[in-house]
Amino acid sequence: MSKKLTSRTEDYSKWYNELVVKANLAENSAVRGCMVIKPYGYAIWEKMQAELDRMFKETGHENAYFPLFVPKSLFEAEEKNAEGFAKECAVVTHYRLQNDPDNPGKLRVDPNAKLEEELVVRPTSEAIIWNTYKGWIESYRDLPLLINQWANVVRWEMRTRLFLRTAEFLWQEGHTAHATKAEAIQEAELMNDVYATFAQDFMAIPVIKGRKTESERFAGADETYCIEALMQDGKALQAGTSHFLGQNFAKAFDVKFANKEGKQDYVWATSWGVSTRLMGALIMTHSDDLGLVLPPNLAPHQVVIVPIFKNEEQFEAIQDKVNIISKELRAAGVSVKFDKRDTLRPGAKFAQHELQGVPLRLAIGARDLENGTVELARRDTLTKETVDISTLTEKVTGLLKDIQKTLFDKALNYRNSHITEVNSFEEFKEVLETKGGFISAHWDGTIETENKIKELTKATTRCIPDSFKAEEGVCIYSGKPSKTRVLFAKAY
Amino acid sequence: MSKKLTSRTEDYSKWYNELVVKANLAENSAVRGCMVIKPYGYAIWEKMQAELDRMFKETGHENAYFPLFVPKSLFEAEEKNAEGFAKECAVVTHYRLQNDPDNPGKLRVDPNAKLEEELVVRPTSEAIIWNTYKGWIESYRDLPLLINQWANVVRWEMRTRLFLRTAEFLWQEGHTAHATKAEAIQEAELMNDVYATFAQDFMAIPVIKGRKTESERFAGADETYCIEALMQDGKALQAGTSHFLGQNFAKAFDVKFANKEGKQDYVWATSWGVSTRLMGALIMTHSDDLGLVLPPNLAPHQVVIVPIFKNEEQFEAIQDKVNIISKELRAAGVSVKFDKRDTLRPGAKFAQHELQGVPLRLAIGARDLENGTVELARRDTLTKETVDISTLTEKVTGLLKDIQKTLFDKALNYRNSHITEVNSFEEFKEVLETKGGFISAHWDGTIETENKIKELTKATTRCIPDSFKAEEGVCIYSGKPSKTRVLFAKAY
Repeated sequence: MSKKLTSRTEDYSKWYNELVVKANLAENSAVRGCMVIKPYGYAIWEKMQAELDRMFKETGHENAYFPLFVPKSLFEAEEKNAEGFAKECAVVTHYRLQNDPDNPGKLRVDPNAKLEEELVVRPTSEAIIWNTYKGWIESYRDLPLLINQWANVVRWEMRTRLFLRTAEFLWQEGHTAHATKAEAIQEAELMNDVYATFAQDFMAIPVIKGRKTESERFAGADETYCIEALMQDGKALQAGTSHFLGQNFAKAFDVKFANKEGKQDYVWATSWGVSTRLMGALIMTHSDDLGLVLPPNLAPHQVVIVPIFKNEEQFEAIQDKVNIISKELRAAGVSVKFDKRDTLRPGAKFAQHELQGVPLRLAIGARDLENGTVELARRDTLTKETVDISTLTEKVTGLLKDIQKTLFDKALNYRNSHITEVNSFEEFKEVLETKGGFISAHWDGTIETENKIKELTKATTRCIPDSFKAEEGVCIYSGKPSKTRVLFAKAY
Repeated sequence: MSKKLTSRTEDYSKWYNELVVKANLAENSAVRGCMVIKPYGYAIWEKMQAELDRMFKETGHENAYFPLFVPKSLFEAEEKNAEGFAKECAVVTHYRLQNDPDNPGKLRVDPNAKLEEELVVRPTSEAIIWNTYKGWIESYRDLPLLINQWANVVRWEMRTRLFLRTAEFLWQEGHTAHATKAEAIQEAELMNDVYATFAQDFMAIPVIKGRKTESERFAGADETYCIEALMQDGKALQAGTSHFLGQNFAKAFDVKFANKEGKQDYVWATSWGVSTRLMGALIMTHSDDLGLVLPPNLAPHQVVIVPIFKNEEQFEAIQDKVNIISKELRAAGVSVKFDKRDTLRPGAKFAQHELQGVPLRLAIGARDLENGTVELARRDTLTKETVDISTLTEKVTGLLKDIQKTLFDKALNYRNSHITEVNSFEEFKEVLETKGGFISAHWDGTIETENKIKELTKATTRCIPDSFKAEEGVCIYSGKPSKTRVLFAKAY
């Protein structure tokens, strides 16, 4: 297998697929549309999980676990939600296999083990969770209920891509219940803010916070908040969503509570989630033609140390020095890996760590030992410098902070230079074809116009940014009056 | 709902079920045999996960994630494994629902969306993982492969009980690949040791390490190592297993590697797992008629502080003091919860924290403020004492250590006094009926005798403990020669 990736300008999509596989992040499995997340990719996902989990707990949420399966009768209770997901449902119909009488050594589904009621493999858990909440909520004292779940979900997609769109994916889904509409809306907005902070400060991915148009809302939501990121090829990626569900699920599952005055009312709901799709956003925001580029916050190893030696004696001396260096770096909170494999030459190691996006590479040879120096190479800028060992820890911690900031700034510059305001459909199409990115345009607020624009250009409405003020205008497509601009883009 | 539990002597099984639900650990769901793990129960599971994950990583393992589904043709490849699990498999046969033309508003499985090949919901992942490993292993340089997965699995059980036996459960499954038989056996033994250390040092549950008899082995294993615990009702519980899989899966999935001499050989395998079943072991090892008793290591809150006050002014003064105390306790690594709910009286709070097993309860009232004291109550011994606030942190950290040790010692004493050596089947039956526990007896080594003893007494072989030496004897049932004793017990 060639180590070299297809370049982004040559074929962006091919570059992405090759990078995911060659950097050992994930690969396709024997199950149509399902991926295997490999140890290196999973280690990055674990870092995301740990930080998100900390942020959820800090904002008062607890984790719990609900069943993988949703009985069909519960699944169909909230009609819009059911309608939105019905076409993507994996369905369990039987609970046993038996020896196949026609094919010795093979198994078949036991026709006598048909379930009375089919079970849907959860595509999202509102139904099973609200059916459970019914038993947990009696009065205002039981509210708010602030629960999150880390789980796998299944949505049967016809066209899949590693991390971006897979039949099974990992995610977290928050499901909260509140006594008032205002409180539920506040919660949905808060969690969208949490996602934005996480994306920007932890993943170094700039995002636009906003609300979805009606046609792009989650099935069953009254409002969908979202964070939208921009990939290097000018396409947008929805990185997280938070939904205000009104009383839709409370009504579908008859979840009422006694308020302080003793009156019965339906409970108000939110749900919010991010998934392993974030891995796709991470890759397509920062990486280059040599491979993955990781912000230090997400790197399984922030520093990799490669020894350069000609004989065992040199190796031993280098190893002694590396042990001292590593100990000091770890004490400063830096994660370090000593790559002492004897099966690869230094050059091959360099290439692998470049491909896998390790933020800093430290090379140390016999001459360095004499001089009290190391060679430090930065993955994001591909620059090298010789550093005195006495100042190494300070240097490394400073560089890691700088890399995190540089990556964010670079992505922010790219994103900001790819938001274009247009005032006609001709301009819209031209910008979309030549430059891509987000296009800010007036729109008449109808689904018909959204569909027509999508049909003609493949661009969809991404969100109405929180920062957009009301502004009188004219829809670029229909010429009808518009009260606000909206962001369009081609999207993943 | 009455807060009082059925007592253990009255009905142990009912006591267990009530405790699980009333202490907010878990409850049954709308899906047959599947449970909802509630936030308090899940917080305990998270503590187990964190410690196990740390121990796995310390022994060189990495996490990854493999698909939920196993195509039937892969599932049946390793015959013994397939045969062992076929009767418990949930099977996905369709990938879409549609509106039911006969029932407006309802959905049905779309008959045109039948899968070409059925998908088994993983009951365990050897098949899908070894099919993946085939692509990862070429030479000895790729070995050992030391991977763990945290996941949900489904085994369609007819009789289920919360945590102990559920259709869906959460677990971790380690799957490793090795170049030699000796190394794989060493790995399987190492992980059984890790489980034993975890159970004893972290969960305060004494366990017996040993090997299963052939009939009790994992389907597809050449050897199954296990840890066996003893519950308070004299029944055993298998708390973890580690399997040496020989080359069975490597042969079924054709996974070969080039050894250092360049010769092709099949890879050697292990797998090992513990599950949410450990929650059942935890409950049934330590708890009493008042509810859950938690070892401090597993307690979501090690100390709960309950204010006793008559008016707002008193509450404010107490709260100020509690803030100081909490800060000091947290700085010493103690997890603290201040229960300042105004919807419950102190007595009701005491009962709830007793039911939920909080190791230490600290009550503080107006007189305590004057005296510079607090009342400290210990959940395990139900003893109380008045403690000077100036010595509180030292006292609490000391008590937490003592509780952890006391719980282990108590369980160890019970367990040790319930291992009985017998030399006849009459004696065997009598001990089983009157005393329960583990029974050490000679057995002729045949499955027939195991089955007969099980049929007559419901006792099964639990393991051949590592500590048992070869010993010539006579089978208590058949009278045939025996070379070693084995432990029998009725088991969960």
